[in-house]
Amino acid sequence: MSGAIDGGGPGAVVLDAMGGDHGPAETVAGAVAARREHGVPVVLVGREPDLARELAVHDAAGEIPVVHAPDVVPMTERGAGGAALTASSLAVGCGLLGGGGAAAFVSAGSTGAVVAQAVRRVGRAEGVLRPALAVALPTLPGGGASVLVDAGATADPTPEMMAQFALLGAGYARAVLGVPDPVAGLLSIGSEPGKGNRLARRAEELLRGLPMRFHGNIEGHDVLSGAVDVIVTDGFTGNVVLKSVEGCVRTALAMVARAGLAEPDALARVARRYDPQTHGGAALLGLRGTVIVAHGSSTAATIARACVVAHSLSALEPA
Amino acid sequence: MSGAIDGGGPGAVVLDAMGGDHGPAETVAGAVAARREHGVPVVLVGREPDLARELAVHDAAGEIPVVHAPDVVPMTERGAGGAALTASSLAVGCGLLGGGGAAAFVSAGSTGAVVAQAVRRVGRAEGVLRPALAVALPTLPGGGASVLVDAGATADPTPEMMAQFALLGAGYARAVLGVPDPVAGLLSIGSEPGKGNRLARRAEELLRGLPMRFHGNIEGHDVLSGAVDVIVTDGFTGNVVLKSVEGCVRTALAMVARAGLAEPDALARVARRYDPQTHGGAALLGLRGTVIVAHGSSTAATIARACVVAHSLSALEPA
Repeated sequence: MSGAIDGGGPGAVVLDAMGGDHGPAETVAGAVAARREHGVPVVLVGREPDLARELAVHDAAGEIPVVHAPDVVPMTERGAGGAALTASSLAVGCGLLGGGGAAAFVSAGSTGAVVAQAVRRVGRAEGVLRPALAVALPTLPGGGASVLVDAGATADPTPEMMAQFALLGAGYARAVLGVPDPVAGLLSIGSEPGKGNRLARRAEELLRGLPMRFHGNIEGHDVLSGAVDVIVTDGFTGNVVLKSVEGCVRTALAMVARAGLAEPDALARVARRYDPQTHGGAALLGLRGTVIVAHGSSTAATIARACVVAHSLSALEPA
Repeated sequence: MSGAIDGGGPGAVVLDAMGGDHGPAETVAGAVAARREHGVPVVLVGREPDLARELAVHDAAGEIPVVHAPDVVPMTERGAGGAALTASSLAVGCGLLGGGGAAAFVSAGSTGAVVAQAVRRVGRAEGVLRPALAVALPTLPGGGASVLVDAGATADPTPEMMAQFALLGAGYARAVLGVPDPVAGLLSIGSEPGKGNRLARRAEELLRGLPMRFHGNIEGHDVLSGAVDVIVTDGFTGNVVLKSVEGCVRTALAMVARAGLAEPDALARVARRYDPQTHGGAALLGLRGTVIVAHGSSTAATIARACVVAHSLSALEPA
């Protein structure tokens, strides 16, 4: 546990071991998998006795550094409410990243609480106006994905912020999805140039001037069609669309089940494969370090995947 | 054809017989069904020779008045582009409603063109700041529906306009869905009071002061859950969500088909039952008369349903 003080070094991925619905059993198993199977240098933050017990289960005591944090932010905590808990695994983990003691932070805690703490304790990267939450939405053709950015970090961005979201999203598409030259589309209410509300119309003008590929406006139909690699939108629209799509998949599959066309268990497997969050979690882009918000229901495999994504993304950060 | 000059009288439902992908064959059949099966006083607007031929197919010559309009707005026409065609069935039909010669107008033409013409030629009802497009989204539990308003008529509303959208949507829920005391929810990015972007936060305050039931904020997950009868949002977010949901249902069912869990034909039947537009079309609320935008692919039965909805709604208008 000698690596506990500094968080494991500037290249480490700090994992909030207390976040998520399943607690340390799944997060520690995920950390072990990330380290052993993918070589990711993970550091665990949380209640030391709990983590020592779980590490022993995997015969991994001493293999993965632990930073003790006595408090736990409840999963019901939303927004900045958990900020009072300065000794929580969430606050301590974000502090390690903000202080330069790590390269990335991963949590399966509540999205609102993670975003609030990360913005406060990690801070913005140089030149970035506001952070943006990026989510990889699975698309049907070919099994690829499109990055939705911003999925909810900044509810009232300026057009200039949205142009930055496009660049941040393109970086994510390159690093995580392996798209060499990503093309972005602006989510709007008409595919023709000049369609949209005031914010989208001005953002469109700025997107046309960026040093990257811009497809033009796309519509809601295109969110899951794979038409573009990066779907640019404000955090209000992006969050509503993300949650609408999640709810809609559940409803559509329930309708199929109700119509007696397929077994609920088989449909649940389709739904899981489709869940946007299983694609490595939502990445909070534009901070002085990489922050990944994994789904609250993440299993060990999902946590491991989020740590791998965090490690890939952190290699892109300006350090 | 004596009723042709004045549009059939102040209680009539004017049908754009040239709108839609299938042309007069389906629209005229729908008009005949609306009149014979539901007693709706329909008037057809379009190319007289075409309509006379189709009416003869149903042995309905002289039974349904016809107003001649030589031009047709192409289905590819969007926005206000079709405005130049002053002798189109769309322009003439809206003009009849605006001039007081009818109670309602139904078209399966392009939504953008219908909204633009209706706003121009029908005009706003007294006291209404801006019109709003209402769409009944089918919800799973119990097979009910929620009214999404605004689904795209006003991209940049003020909070005051959004408060009116709630009242307009409640009128729709009462008249079309038969909900005696509708409850509205504001689409936002958190269910707690005060969550949202600036527009939603101010709209929430105004919605709390309305003389109607207000559930509070809802999230994207709730769009298809049946949590509220009326989903209030700005026209930008509403249009993006509507189209996202439509695309998502298609994608989810395609995934089930690809997984080999059900036959594509059976899934297509589920998709059709689910299509928001089959629920009577989108209603443009807040004008001096009722305007219904039916889906471009509407069959005779869908057109008939839209005429019935238009007739029900027009009974609510201040005339």
